[in-house]
Amino acid sequence: MSIIVLGTVALDTVQTPSGRRKELLGGSAAHFSMAARLFSKVDLIAVVGEDFPAQHVAFLKGRGLNLDSLIVSRGKTFRWEGQYTGDLNSALTLDTQLGVLSEFKPQVSLAQRKIRHIFLANVDPDIQESLLAKMRSPELVGLDSMNYWINTKRKELVKLLKRIDIYVANDQEARVLSGQSNLIQAAKQLCSWGPRMVLIKKGEHGVLFYNKQFIFSLPAYPVAEVIDPTGAGDTFAGGFMGYLACVRKINAAQIKKALAYGTVAASFNVEEFGLLRTCRLTREDLEKRLIKFKGCFSF
Amino acid sequence: MSIIVLGTVALDTVQTPSGRRKELLGGSAAHFSMAARLFSKVDLIAVVGEDFPAQHVAFLKGRGLNLDSLIVSRGKTFRWEGQYTGDLNSALTLDTQLGVLSEFKPQVSLAQRKIRHIFLANVDPDIQESLLAKMRSPELVGLDSMNYWINTKRKELVKLLKRIDIYVANDQEARVLSGQSNLIQAAKQLCSWGPRMVLIKKGEHGVLFYNKQFIFSLPAYPVAEVIDPTGAGDTFAGGFMGYLACVRKINAAQIKKALAYGTVAASFNVEEFGLLRTCRLTREDLEKRLIKFKGCFSF
Repeated sequence: MSIIVLGTVALDTVQTPSGRRKELLGGSAAHFSMAARLFSKVDLIAVVGEDFPAQHVAFLKGRGLNLDSLIVSRGKTFRWEGQYTGDLNSALTLDTQLGVLSEFKPQVSLAQRKIRHIFLANVDPDIQESLLAKMRSPELVGLDSMNYWINTKRKELVKLLKRIDIYVANDQEARVLSGQSNLIQAAKQLCSWGPRMVLIKKGEHGVLFYNKQFIFSLPAYPVAEVIDPTGAGDTFAGGFMGYLACVRKINAAQIKKALAYGTVAASFNVEEFGLLRTCRLTREDLEKRLIKFKGCFSF
Repeated sequence: MSIIVLGTVALDTVQTPSGRRKELLGGSAAHFSMAARLFSKVDLIAVVGEDFPAQHVAFLKGRGLNLDSLIVSRGKTFRWEGQYTGDLNSALTLDTQLGVLSEFKPQVSLAQRKIRHIFLANVDPDIQESLLAKMRSPELVGLDSMNYWINTKRKELVKLLKRIDIYVANDQEARVLSGQSNLIQAAKQLCSWGPRMVLIKKGEHGVLFYNKQFIFSLPAYPVAEVIDPTGAGDTFAGGFMGYLACVRKINAAQIKKALAYGTVAASFNVEEFGLLRTCRLTREDLEKRLIKFKGCFSF
């Protein structure tokens, strides 16, 4: 099966207690893809600038991604600079340079329009909408956003929620968008606005899944040394959506398994800077850690 | 089997988004006992003042607790007043009146000295030490503390850690005492100071268990409406220690099950004010919810 992901491909500069790295290949679509590719064919929809290193394009292609709709625009690649301190649960953004992202109009080929599994990673809700409008037969649509859009384009975002299946948010975003402090109430509220399922990422505290029939809750995989949490949420979404794209029928058991794959994929992501660990991740690595993960709580 | 718990019996005044309740029966030993009694005979070691309502004594006795060593001292019962807002994860202490707690010298009968399972709930480490010194054949000793003692009696607390088996802390306390921000590193550090096991309570985010052989992580049971979180951590410890006091051999599987019982007991505790829900909790309630809890994550 195929999955199409719309999002950012970025050059990230990060500072964590483990060190500083400059202009690492990153972005929501890139992190998502590193996990999703282990389950499904991944088509990446994003934009980069003319300054985007050719080696990065080769690197992404080498991971098996379809880059037919990766646009190279005149201008600079989107750059993000952030810093993590203390418990590494949230980043302090030091600098954001949108570059070519500010004029991004996603392209999608005729063949890609037929892909049924879609993930709209965090970009402007208008851009997310414009891609979704082009898709011919969406079957399972996931969407992630962030506080910036919740605050500046709330109306557009809420409108978009009507047309998606899975809303993916971190706990803070879920609380802000729903206006509910209890996460179950927040998920319930968000579900009432459209999506059939709500998935709340809680960083080192795991994940909460809500739909009308059931609530699932998984802890995070315990990682003793977090090197760089950037992109953990997108990696989670990649494992989750990627797995669901390759199952025959989505039911409660498959959703739980998808959550577990997402969790385990994210745990690898934080063990090295940027994509350094997930770029060499294999399905076998995932399966091995899945068994360990299960041992952390099954009784 | 029997378990002995040293801690507070208090009159709690709490304000939560669900309302305000004045002078509810509470305290660490009382909350602990409500869960532990479902598994084991519980001997309660605490002090109250002359103003302690007789109905509360009758209530505790009615729950099957042995109150032979509940001292009634001249003076006022320990009172705590707190307020919860927002995500209900932490209380703002509005007032503390130690009363008879400031002169508390725990008593323990000859029969009680032989009890092998001991929980030292949150009181002054010197008081915890004085009880432990009287116990003849401790087999499994758990200890809880709080930031106040970590800051004011750190030396005494660290010394005491050498003599216990299980250190129970919330995430913030574990970080402060260990000086480590990663919770696994924090648990590892704390283990190196004495206890064989470290149990980190993360409120709505569940629990992390660490010993040299394994790490367990359980989410919290998802509660849609938290009425009053006061005592949830002690209720957790009561379910956990109470269950371990009644198993023949403590191994990894039993520890996971004990963590699950603690989690489920705590989830009942937060559903009503004070002890209102846990005082009528039955083993059957626990078992039923345990099955639901398992369904939240087992895949």
